[in-house]
Amino acid sequence: MSVLIVGSTALDSIKTPKAENPRLLGGSASHAAVAASFFSPVKLVGVVGDDFPKRYLELYNRHKIDLAGLQILPGKTFHWSGEYEVNMNNRRTLLTELGVFETFNPTLPAAYQKSQFVLLANIAPALQHHVLNQMRRPKFVVADTMDLWLNIALPDLLKLLKRLDGFVLNDSEAHQLTKEDNVFAAMKKIHKLGPKYVIIKKGSHGSILSGPKGFFICPAYPLHSVVDPTGAGDSFVGGMMGYLATARGSIDSNIRRGMIYGSVTASFCCEGFGLNRTTKVKRSQIDARVKELEKLTRF
Amino acid sequence: MSVLIVGSTALDSIKTPKAENPRLLGGSASHAAVAASFFSPVKLVGVVGDDFPKRYLELYNRHKIDLAGLQILPGKTFHWSGEYEVNMNNRRTLLTELGVFETFNPTLPAAYQKSQFVLLANIAPALQHHVLNQMRRPKFVVADTMDLWLNIALPDLLKLLKRLDGFVLNDSEAHQLTKEDNVFAAMKKIHKLGPKYVIIKKGSHGSILSGPKGFFICPAYPLHSVVDPTGAGDSFVGGMMGYLATARGSIDSNIRRGMIYGSVTASFCCEGFGLNRTTKVKRSQIDARVKELEKLTRF
Repeated sequence: MSVLIVGSTALDSIKTPKAENPRLLGGSASHAAVAASFFSPVKLVGVVGDDFPKRYLELYNRHKIDLAGLQILPGKTFHWSGEYEVNMNNRRTLLTELGVFETFNPTLPAAYQKSQFVLLANIAPALQHHVLNQMRRPKFVVADTMDLWLNIALPDLLKLLKRLDGFVLNDSEAHQLTKEDNVFAAMKKIHKLGPKYVIIKKGSHGSILSGPKGFFICPAYPLHSVVDPTGAGDSFVGGMMGYLATARGSIDSNIRRGMIYGSVTASFCCEGFGLNRTTKVKRSQIDARVKELEKLTRF
Repeated sequence: MSVLIVGSTALDSIKTPKAENPRLLGGSASHAAVAASFFSPVKLVGVVGDDFPKRYLELYNRHKIDLAGLQILPGKTFHWSGEYEVNMNNRRTLLTELGVFETFNPTLPAAYQKSQFVLLANIAPALQHHVLNQMRRPKFVVADTMDLWLNIALPDLLKLLKRLDGFVLNDSEAHQLTKEDNVFAAMKKIHKLGPKYVIIKKGSHGSILSGPKGFFICPAYPLHSVVDPTGAGDSFVGGMMGYLATARGSIDSNIRRGMIYGSVTASFCCEGFGLNRTTKVKRSQIDARVKELEKLTRF
């Protein structure tokens, strides 16, 4: 089955202590869609301006990403610019130009509305609602978010949580949402807000799932150097959703392995600027790292 | 086989946002010795003053810890006082009274010198050297340390590293020692300083081993609340060394499971002030959490 992914489709200008790369293909939906494409067909919902480079449309096409839901409107593509500190953990936004994204009104093609697996990647909760409103009884809906929406759109986000099967957020966002320092206590509180599956991302420390079958401690793949972590979280959840959309059996019996596949896809994302490394990866390389992670965690 | 453990034996006055407990049994050697005692006989090397409460000697005795190497000298026992911030990750030292510890000169009883497993728990590197100088061909020597010794006794510590099989330190200390932000890159550099086994502790994020058989990603046991993390790192390495001292087979085939046992022992340590919870634990409870960790990490 395919995964429907809505989120931002952007141009990212990224500065790290070692290099600077302007106008890379970025945005939560781009990273998630490319990650998911290794495992299942992807239907993309997003908007770009008429300045969007043709080579990026070709990149989506190479990954067989369905672009019927990608609007190309007169105006500028969403442009984000950010800078990472030496340890690559802290970043600051230098510039945000919303462009055509400011008035984005996602309208789903008829063929999209029956999608069973829906990933509401990071985007305003109102838009996540709007997409969900157009869906016909999806099987598994997961949303990601960011601190910005906790700050300026919390009521929308809280309403969204009641409509989700799974919610993915990072540890500082979980703290912001629940006021709990302890991630396990935070997950318990988030379940009460709606989602049956709660996943907290901890960057290089991996991630944790709380679900009907209890906790799962998901490791990050060991990387000796990180080139650019932008999009790693989106790659993680995109890879997981792509895996789940084609895996046989129940969500419960597949979600741990889905997170592992997501974790490995995210590791490749970190090894290059933007999507530079991810787009060069072969499925066999992903499978090899999954096998390595099995060995690295057995005792 | 038994484990010889040298380190600090102290009275800890600990303040957390929720409670305050004066003059608890503490010190790196106390925590490590009690942790190791669940798995193997322990020989303790340390010093206390004549104010050391009799009930703490009885506590050591209940854990069958050999006290032939514990000096009781006229004067005051080492007293440390510290306070934790709300999130329990940051602590600040309020007071350090060295007492008899200031002139501690560990002299090993003859029966101690043949010990095969040696844990040089956190203490000045000069004292760790001094103990090692008295040993006859130990099989497996592991040392722990702290930021203080990296600051004021680095040359001693660097000399010590060449004499160790294993070195245990936390992530910020690894960064301080190697100037590497990436833990895997840091471990590679630490191997070059001597130790075959390097273990980096990451608190609630678990720990990582780099050894002859590659990496092992060791999870922390999920705790919904932490009462007092003092001594958790010492409990971790103590539990691991106790496990290794009695496990059949090579270090390589046992060290992963040893870390898991250490991790579980440390989880109990965090659930009470000082050693309050650890001393009430039964081996069967430790085994149960190890089984849980197996389930929490399988995919």
